Amino acid sequence: QTLNIAVIAGDGIGIEVMPFGVRCLKAAASVYGFSLEFTEFDFASCEYYLKNGKMMPNDWKEKLSQFDAIYFGAVGMPNLVPDHVSLWGSLLKFRREFDQYINLRPCRLMPGVPCPLANKKPGDIDFWVVRENTEGEYSSVGGKMFEDTEREIVVQETIMTRVGVDRVLKYALELASSRPKKHLTSATKSNGISITMPYWDDRLQKLQGGYEDLKIDKFHIDILTAWLVLRPEQFDVIVGSNLFGDILSDLGPACAGTIGIAPSANLNPDGKFPSLFEPVHGSAPDIVGKGIANPVGMIWAGQMMLEHFGFKEAAAAMLKAIENVLARQEAHVLTPDMGGKGGSTESLGSAIEKEILAL
Amino acid sequence: QTLNIAVIAGDGIGIEVMPFGVRCLKAAASVYGFSLEFTEFDFASCEYYLKNGKMMPNDWKEKLSQFDAIYFGAVGMPNLVPDHVSLWGSLLKFRREFDQYINLRPCRLMPGVPCPLANKKPGDIDFWVVRENTEGEYSSVGGKMFEDTEREIVVQETIMTRVGVDRVLKYALELASSRPKKHLTSATKSNGISITMPYWDDRLQKLQGGYEDLKIDKFHIDILTAWLVLRPEQFDVIVGSNLFGDILSDLGPACAGTIGIAPSANLNPDGKFPSLFEPVHGSAPDIVGKGIANPVGMIWAGQMMLEHFGFKEAAAAMLKAIENVLARQEAHVLTPDMGGKGGSTESLGSAIEKEILAL
Ligand SMILES: CC(C)[C@H](C(=O)O)[C@@H](O)C(=O)O
Ligand SMILES: CC(C)[C@H](C(=O)O)[C@@H](O)C(=O)O
Repeated sequence: QTLNIAVIAGDGIGIEVMPFGVRCLKAAASVYGFSLEFTEFDFASCEYYLKNGKMMPNDWKEKLSQFDAIYFGAVGMPNLVPDHVSLWGSLLKFRREFDQYINLRPCRLMPGVPCPLANKKPGDIDFWVVRENTEGEYSSVGGKMFEDTEREIVVQETIMTRVGVDRVLKYALELASSRPKKHLTSATKSNGISITMPYWDDRLQKLQGGYEDLKIDKFHIDILTAWLVLRPEQFDVIVGSNLFGDILSDLGPACAGTIGIAPSANLNPDGKFPSLFEPVHGSAPDIVGKGIANPVGMIWAGQMMLEHFGFKEAAAAMLKAIENVLARQEAHVLTPDMGGKGGSTESLGSAIEKEILAL
Repeated sequence: QTLNIAVIAGDGIGIEVMPFGVRCLKAAASVYGFSLEFTEFDFASCEYYLKNGKMMPNDWKEKLSQFDAIYFGAVGMPNLVPDHVSLWGSLLKFRREFDQYINLRPCRLMPGVPCPLANKKPGDIDFWVVRENTEGEYSSVGGKMFEDTEREIVVQETIMTRVGVDRVLKYALELASSRPKKHLTSATKSNGISITMPYWDDRLQKLQGGYEDLKIDKFHIDILTAWLVLRPEQFDVIVGSNLFGDILSDLGPACAGTIGIAPSANLNPDGKFPSLFEPVHGSAPDIVGKGIANPVGMIWAGQMMLEHFGFKEAAAAMLKAIENVLARQEAHVLTPDMGGKGGSTESLGSAIEKEILAL
């Protein structure tokens, strides 16, 4: 069985961390005896945009549809290309056109990672954020009126469909069912956002029927962000709309030490289209070219890819390798964002690769 | 000079903390020699709704317009009245119809309050959230289509106006200018929410012209919530849309220990309509009737009211009194949410009142 992977490094530190993601995946494949095929693409990057006036060639969908997965670095050069142009022309297009309707992100305090919250240890923070990934607040519908006058008005629609809401809620219900704590938390804001959010709540109410063994609660997004800081232990699986999931899945990893190491899986669970695996961190223009970008998010994203495609043992080994290397807290290995001194993308990435091979 | 204050205790613990807010304000007025007149109203509560089928009488606006300020407890009995009914029929109506377009909230680590973030001390967390309070994501425009079918679609508009965006940005620019750090942070999400949020960014770009001495930066809301946890010291004034401000002003106080003590000022800076001062915590049905609700948010909201109306000395004294009482960390005085043992709304509220009189 060969997994066919499209590699899109993108921009900024995406280009710097990608090689280590690929190396670690190759290491896992060699140890566990399966085969991965990587094909690189230069589009879906701002560099491509600056040359071609668009983020991707017209046949991007045809090209990428043949792959099982897209392994994605990061996109964005905000000083040269507005973010809403680069993102809507690449990552957000993939999510929508490949119907990657689940965005799954672990929030997990790893050994050796200093935690910004007082008195937390590994195990205390360990939950998943399940984010709706195709609709909701990220719509492209809306516009301007009375442009350039005092009366200027800008409108943008949040659009939720029953199909879209139900499938993400079902996925989250199933995920929570499969976990020992059996606890699902829904992010809402039905007290303030009075049309879409009560609908979200209603659909959960309807769907939770078959899940009597789950503990299900809901919090408004404002107080939910507060609880993430005050009592992260209480969470197991959190489900949220596109925007709320976005916020929670940056805040959650921050509570667990750093968003520099967090991964993200954009899943088309039906398997009709490729799923996409990426680090959460983005292109980070401020540290480009210094060789200090943290490769863990990229590698961990690869780990999620193996997990998703059923290579459980290899996935477990990759996670273990990441944990082992971080737990050692070697300053000359770790990147500066993790308290490293003299460490680099190269030293940290290679250490994890070596650890996978040695496990 | 007499300040005319409409008192609306509302629901739940709003009713329990309000008397202490009033007592502390009276104490401050007696010491500093000005006069306050309080007039109580029973509407804008779920109890009123259950009796009358509406949250307020038809002439609520006429009744309340005569006052300088509304001193507001909390509203909500989610088990009996859906939140979007009770809130849209009271608090959110006030904000909108009294054009309280600024929602101002301090995030401040107080002495004696245990901080959930590691290694922080009073002074490390001390910033303001300026929230747009009348439009944006909290719109009542939208609806449903294909109701009760598989094709069901729900739409809600986010509406931003130039008037609305400009005035909150200007207020925030002015506030930041008046502070020693001179630092303004704008919350955006222009990379994902591609119409309203780029507009927000554009308007800031246009308006910041006269403020060359300010440091102005912007962060997407997802990473901004992460920074609040990772490096709260870096913030001074944060400005956000209705929803983003809502989130940041729960998360901020949580980072500073508890949202149980945070206040909120809903300002009509023009003075055409009454401004509204309330604690952030809400009606908290889970602890109603136990006498353990924390009165600090209510009292601090009163403090903001005095500040707003120019009673600077009295306001400073009230804040000092709150700080002094909290700093003493007397378990029999503090409410349980603050680590108290045997303390109550009564003991904590009275202690602050006494402190104001003694200062
Ligand atoms: C109760 C709710 C509608 C309200 C809001 O979202 O504005 C509250 O959270 C607040 O921050 O005052
Ligand atoms: C880059 C941006 C559009 C994106 C999002 O908001 O979805 C990112 O924050 C993420 O979480 O993947």
